[in-house]
Amino acid sequence: MARTSHGPLTGLRILEIGHFIAAPFATRLLADLGAEVIKVEPPSGDPVRQWGKQLNGASPWWSLHGRNKKSITLNLKHPKAIEIVLQLAACSDALVENFRPGHLGKLGLSEDALRKARQDLVIARITGFGQDGPYRNRAAFGVIGEAMGGLRHLTNHPPGSSDLPPVRVGVSIGDSVAGLYAAFGLMAALWQRDRTSGDGVGRTLDVALTDSVLSLMEGMLPEYGVLGEVRQPTGSRIVTAAPSSAYPTKDGKWLLIAANSDPLFARLAQLMGKSELARDPRYIGNRERVANTEALDEIISSWTLQMTAADGDRLLSEEDIPCTQVYTAVECAADPQYRQRGMVREIEDPRLGTVLHPGIVPHIPENPGTVRWPGSAIGAHTEEILEQLIGMGGADIDTLRQEGVIS
Amino acid sequence: MARTSHGPLTGLRILEIGHFIAAPFATRLLADLGAEVIKVEPPSGDPVRQWGKQLNGASPWWSLHGRNKKSITLNLKHPKAIEIVLQLAACSDALVENFRPGHLGKLGLSEDALRKARQDLVIARITGFGQDGPYRNRAAFGVIGEAMGGLRHLTNHPPGSSDLPPVRVGVSIGDSVAGLYAAFGLMAALWQRDRTSGDGVGRTLDVALTDSVLSLMEGMLPEYGVLGEVRQPTGSRIVTAAPSSAYPTKDGKWLLIAANSDPLFARLAQLMGKSELARDPRYIGNRERVANTEALDEIISSWTLQMTAADGDRLLSEEDIPCTQVYTAVECAADPQYRQRGMVREIEDPRLGTVLHPGIVPHIPENPGTVRWPGSAIGAHTEEILEQLIGMGGADIDTLRQEGVIS
Repeated sequence: MARTSHGPLTGLRILEIGHFIAAPFATRLLADLGAEVIKVEPPSGDPVRQWGKQLNGASPWWSLHGRNKKSITLNLKHPKAIEIVLQLAACSDALVENFRPGHLGKLGLSEDALRKARQDLVIARITGFGQDGPYRNRAAFGVIGEAMGGLRHLTNHPPGSSDLPPVRVGVSIGDSVAGLYAAFGLMAALWQRDRTSGDGVGRTLDVALTDSVLSLMEGMLPEYGVLGEVRQPTGSRIVTAAPSSAYPTKDGKWLLIAANSDPLFARLAQLMGKSELARDPRYIGNRERVANTEALDEIISSWTLQMTAADGDRLLSEEDIPCTQVYTAVECAADPQYRQRGMVREIEDPRLGTVLHPGIVPHIPENPGTVRWPGSAIGAHTEEILEQLIGMGGADIDTLRQEGVIS
Repeated sequence: MARTSHGPLTGLRILEIGHFIAAPFATRLLADLGAEVIKVEPPSGDPVRQWGKQLNGASPWWSLHGRNKKSITLNLKHPKAIEIVLQLAACSDALVENFRPGHLGKLGLSEDALRKARQDLVIARITGFGQDGPYRNRAAFGVIGEAMGGLRHLTNHPPGSSDLPPVRVGVSIGDSVAGLYAAFGLMAALWQRDRTSGDGVGRTLDVALTDSVLSLMEGMLPEYGVLGEVRQPTGSRIVTAAPSSAYPTKDGKWLLIAANSDPLFARLAQLMGKSELARDPRYIGNRERVANTEALDEIISSWTLQMTAADGDRLLSEEDIPCTQVYTAVECAADPQYRQRGMVREIEDPRLGTVLHPGIVPHIPENPGTVRWPGSAIGAHTEEILEQLIGMGGADIDTLRQEGVIS
């Protein structure tokens, strides 16, 4: 597979006019599998470059978020910059953007203008609420979209058990999921356009963060519509299976145990030195165990509190009972499974030294994606792109720089 | 686009040998965009058919989870059933499965056997931990994978603020995200195989739930590796911006407010009748507001507690301050944006009546995916598939039924 040595998307060219998380996450996935991604940035750069912890003015997160992408800085307020974007669109397979609806159009990059440059361009647009409908002009904050998708309500302790507010999922999950949907939809559109018996048509995808979250909500909508049942949060537990929760340990950590079948529960009971529990009618079958979860979880907690999380993990694993410490960055970084699969890997970053990156998903053993380079400096590829894709010479490029079109 | 009237994946045929959530979620996404999905089920059916609330022995969740798919029941312990699967693989573009590593091989459906049936078959395998490595044989419980991916630790109140365990994300997020990655990777592999200048090669994808979750964790790994910084949970808030949280209302609900910029905060302060806050040095700029979040959130909470969530949502929206009630199924179902975009739609299900389904993501206005039918009964398409794809007659089918190969 020499021609496709960076993964299955080798040969695909994607233009990104994005910022923050969703669109750049979509293009990271495409670049990870081998696509050439050209990221258009304003002279000040994508704001994510300033997010999170910094070292020597460089961002570890950016090392990951921008990996495998080429950066060109363009001042999109300048007509010549728009002309360059249209020339780049002409030689790209697809465009990914996540500005508010209508924003690119006002700059001279309407769908009509883009399709005049390349008729079969696939365009993936990511927004908070979509390209149409009454909310289309609202500001797209991820936390808002996640709450409207129904996910925030369910990520909480059960009603009545806590006065604390529902928890935000620990990452910008709505943005990531919308980015995943965009990458998937884009490949679906490209497959139909490009396959031997395909239709050659460039489609436009309208991916909303709200829609993306709502689509994950399992039985929530159908059960409400059919039965009037409003799904409620279950905290650390699962509504139909027990025991399955996070239990405290003596070193102040949490141990996840999922012993929610009769054989698993019997093994857990024996390990705790309480084999009789597996014969107790209150704990035979998931239905009974769920009904008596409070008492059951108290028994398990008083056992786990006698050990460290690491010891508990080892003891339970030896009995083949599904369990794990609740991993922080420390445990993720050290985990032998991640290391062996290349899912935690060390990447040399000229500005940061060795940086830990997560690997490439999906893993394709016979033709894996690769980390060709970490997130680059702003505009690191401006000249290369103008020369190679638009055929400009050094003098033209100098003029553009003097005019403030590029920087 | 007559040839592609069900979306861009019209003309694609997928064989699913899956169960529970991840693989069937991947095939739902493919079917939603027009693919023909053939789901192989044991005579007892996919266990998800029994999950969640039921009405008349039918499952609202299944109405969604199984939509647009054809179901064939096969007893895979019978050699003739394996023969049929191989014949179906021969006329399919791709296979999606989520059994433990090696399970299908033991049944006679090894990668070699499948590729003998169709050399360029794309195979997407979804497991808890991957096809190789020391954990490959562990049981794949979603909650375990989410905790090992680092998501569980971060989905919690800040250290020291609560004795309650970290919260499970309200849905099986690890399974859904793994399913999304499988659908994306599958289309990437198909694009390279099928495009006019493609390589015609069938790839195998190894998608792990743990890897999928880890890949979403933003700066967690890079910041730890470079700076030794272990990311910690922030509960309802965001670490770098304030105010952004869920605030209580007098009707016992939660109101999400994201007024985390100086102009937004000034508007919020004025709306609360406390314009002076926007000029208070403790609250100018995100850095200062984050440092004084506790006091700030108390002021906002005492204001939101004077109103219902619906009133607060309206008041804040009128001032163009990003906000929302925290939606339950009730608000999702009624939302005008979802309704207008077809993202909440009413589907007629012969066993359940009208069922609310989420719409199809991504939305492709000029060539949208469609809900052709809701999740069907077990084996509803067994005869159709055997007749049309394998060319069997009624007598052959009767024999298979008598032999217990199909049911």
